[in-house]
Amino acid sequence: MSEPLGVALVGCGTVGTGVAKILSRHADRLTGRTGGRPIVLRRVIVRDADKPRECEVPPGLIATDHTVATSDPAVHVVVELIGGTTHAKRVVLDAIAAGKHVVTANKALLAAHGTEIFTAARKHGVAVCFEAAVAGGVPIIRTLAESLSANQITAIQGILNGTSNFILTSMAEGGMSYDDALKEAQRLGYAEADPTLDVDGSDAAHKLAVLAQIAFGVTPKPTDIERQGIAGIQAMDIRFADELGYTIKLLAEAWASESGPGPSTVALHVAPVLLRHTDMLAQVRGAYNAILVVGDIVGETLYQGPGAGMMPTASSVVGDLVDLAVGRAQHTFAAAKLWSAPGERPAFQIAPSEKVRSRFYLRLIVKDEPGTLADVCRCLADQEISISSVIQHEAQDGHPEKTVPLVIMTHYSETGQFRTAAAAVGKLTGIVSPPVFFSVDD
Amino acid sequence: MSEPLGVALVGCGTVGTGVAKILSRHADRLTGRTGGRPIVLRRVIVRDADKPRECEVPPGLIATDHTVATSDPAVHVVVELIGGTTHAKRVVLDAIAAGKHVVTANKALLAAHGTEIFTAARKHGVAVCFEAAVAGGVPIIRTLAESLSANQITAIQGILNGTSNFILTSMAEGGMSYDDALKEAQRLGYAEADPTLDVDGSDAAHKLAVLAQIAFGVTPKPTDIERQGIAGIQAMDIRFADELGYTIKLLAEAWASESGPGPSTVALHVAPVLLRHTDMLAQVRGAYNAILVVGDIVGETLYQGPGAGMMPTASSVVGDLVDLAVGRAQHTFAAAKLWSAPGERPAFQIAPSEKVRSRFYLRLIVKDEPGTLADVCRCLADQEISISSVIQHEAQDGHPEKTVPLVIMTHYSETGQFRTAAAAVGKLTGIVSPPVFFSVDD
Repeated sequence: MSEPLGVALVGCGTVGTGVAKILSRHADRLTGRTGGRPIVLRRVIVRDADKPRECEVPPGLIATDHTVATSDPAVHVVVELIGGTTHAKRVVLDAIAAGKHVVTANKALLAAHGTEIFTAARKHGVAVCFEAAVAGGVPIIRTLAESLSANQITAIQGILNGTSNFILTSMAEGGMSYDDALKEAQRLGYAEADPTLDVDGSDAAHKLAVLAQIAFGVTPKPTDIERQGIAGIQAMDIRFADELGYTIKLLAEAWASESGPGPSTVALHVAPVLLRHTDMLAQVRGAYNAILVVGDIVGETLYQGPGAGMMPTASSVVGDLVDLAVGRAQHTFAAAKLWSAPGERPAFQIAPSEKVRSRFYLRLIVKDEPGTLADVCRCLADQEISISSVIQHEAQDGHPEKTVPLVIMTHYSETGQFRTAAAAVGKLTGIVSPPVFFSVDD
Repeated sequence: MSEPLGVALVGCGTVGTGVAKILSRHADRLTGRTGGRPIVLRRVIVRDADKPRECEVPPGLIATDHTVATSDPAVHVVVELIGGTTHAKRVVLDAIAAGKHVVTANKALLAAHGTEIFTAARKHGVAVCFEAAVAGGVPIIRTLAESLSANQITAIQGILNGTSNFILTSMAEGGMSYDDALKEAQRLGYAEADPTLDVDGSDAAHKLAVLAQIAFGVTPKPTDIERQGIAGIQAMDIRFADELGYTIKLLAEAWASESGPGPSTVALHVAPVLLRHTDMLAQVRGAYNAILVVGDIVGETLYQGPGAGMMPTASSVVGDLVDLAVGRAQHTFAAAKLWSAPGERPAFQIAPSEKVRSRFYLRLIVKDEPGTLADVCRCLADQEISISSVIQHEAQDGHPEKTVPLVIMTHYSETGQFRTAAAAVGKLTGIVSPPVFFSVDD
């Protein structure tokens, strides 16, 4: 029997508890999967050693100082599950400096400090694994980094935030308002008390940054990923979209382009998008995650599963531990050269989304007066955007008298041109509230 | 720069041509993915060296005798793409005996001779990779063997035969008869001139046998996998199912069970199944493949993509070559112990499907006479099967006078009990043609 792989958990909240459960309950199974090498929990680092916990951990393994783990020669892997980018970064860099492999579920940390962490890991000859950082139990990291290695990825469209998807599903299927759907998500534990990072697109943007590093070699700064959250989506938008045959989903998207001279570019953004009801991503309900990946050789492939939660995320963490025990992860780490110095790996340039061509959904609240529709159409025509369809219903409850919602679906245009047109529309005297618009994926 | 990985293609038909294209057109990309090790085509073995081919292969590489490849010290990997189980087996065993790794897309070969091939590979210290053998471009092999390694798989439901799925989609969406849909599939190149292995479930059964080896450690004999094809599905079955809210798909299924004393069991079968319209697998259209995998830790995950074709399958073959060049595949091969001797790896026992509980769709052509429905209901009641709903429409064109279709949906029962009941129904004097029945997945 080989020397066991010693594991230290730093952080024993939801996911950590799941990992500890798997390691203790399924030790024999895991030894079978590694070809005979046991995976053994050596240390559990927590903030409060006395707090009662669900974790089935012998009390002797618990400590509060992470250097107890990083200085233990019987520990080969440090699993960072505390979240955030300050103390977590310290823990990860200390582990690397001590020659320990790292497994992390921390997308914010990778998005912010990937280069520093991976450079340190290469220097110290250890691997960093992060299957759990994106889409919980869905093996999207391995898929991009290993399975599709024959391909250049040309597009990614992901439902990467389960909270937002749960809210949008509740609005679409239960006819709820955004506020009620959010409260329901909080009641059921799908949303935090402060849901900002989930519903404003930040969490999805962190995950997209990680996927884009693997697929395109880019290291986007926070400002490089445009993000639009779901808080501006009203119940009427869900209804209008449905009437037109579409479902609204918060998507994290990457679109590569090789058009024109110069290097290839990739546009990255997180935004609500109208998808046809029959689209695979439109079918993804509740807290599930799904990622459509387009490769230049394989074509379209789709990966779906639970995007968060104790056991799905722990499944991915333990999968990484098995890879380290087998020796696979070390090879992948060395070959993939992720977050490496410029020039070490071919990289795309990050382009703004302005040149991405799309159709658009534009929803306005307009005064019920002659000439308003003509003015709106003129603003679109000035940007050479043609109109595909128009819906104008009678005024509804909750709107001031003499205003009505007006929905316009456009033909294809560049995003930048559409935004210019929408800004002009917003300045018209007949427009009561700021224009709401989403791109449409056909 | 490391020593190149030398590759020999044995067979240069559709998939081989795709592999040769990728190796020649994307050499730089692949060297980047392997961490610096080029992947180089050294030999191409074909039946007819003079046949004009789309393959971009220097004529000097072409030979007709596979031992030219297996005896070439510059060849490290033999890619077997000839299909069948006779000559292909010879090629694979010769390659292994000569110390070459093997990459194959041949599910029939693995299903029939997996143990012999893997035993030989272990003896000679080489790896056998087969991502392309199941579901074309969908990375389901890596997913089961690596990504979900923390889990015991508890169920697999796969649309694994694109030809059948194309035919069923055409019947459902185009209102075609089975015969017309098959002709359309042949016209478009989705079905062979002799489509037997695709439409009778044999091809899907080979693929299920491969997946079941990874997930459950079982090595099913051909008779261990019950198979029912799609040729018995009539247009009216598609319509009745639709009326009830279901889509008919040909599924390859594995259901594990730990109930009762003794070892865990797994039931394996290929059959048409009624899926709710909203089910993810029901949405899979045309020649696509999709696999729902349930793990005891991660829960439900789904993988979808092109199930066949030159480039998707070549994408998987080249992914395996990258894994071999990086060194990952060798670790996976050693740790996974696939097709190993009994006792080396915990294995399920294969159980017949009789104990699998399901609802059923039963469609009969009955004489329009008093008492027939009562007799049918009695046969079901004798097996303690209760009826959920009944549809009886007026007689339709094409049926002899005084006969009508009768559709019964049952509540849950054991498959064996339902089959007994259906056999009894088939003997009733009021039943004009053999009962048609499919299980219903709710």
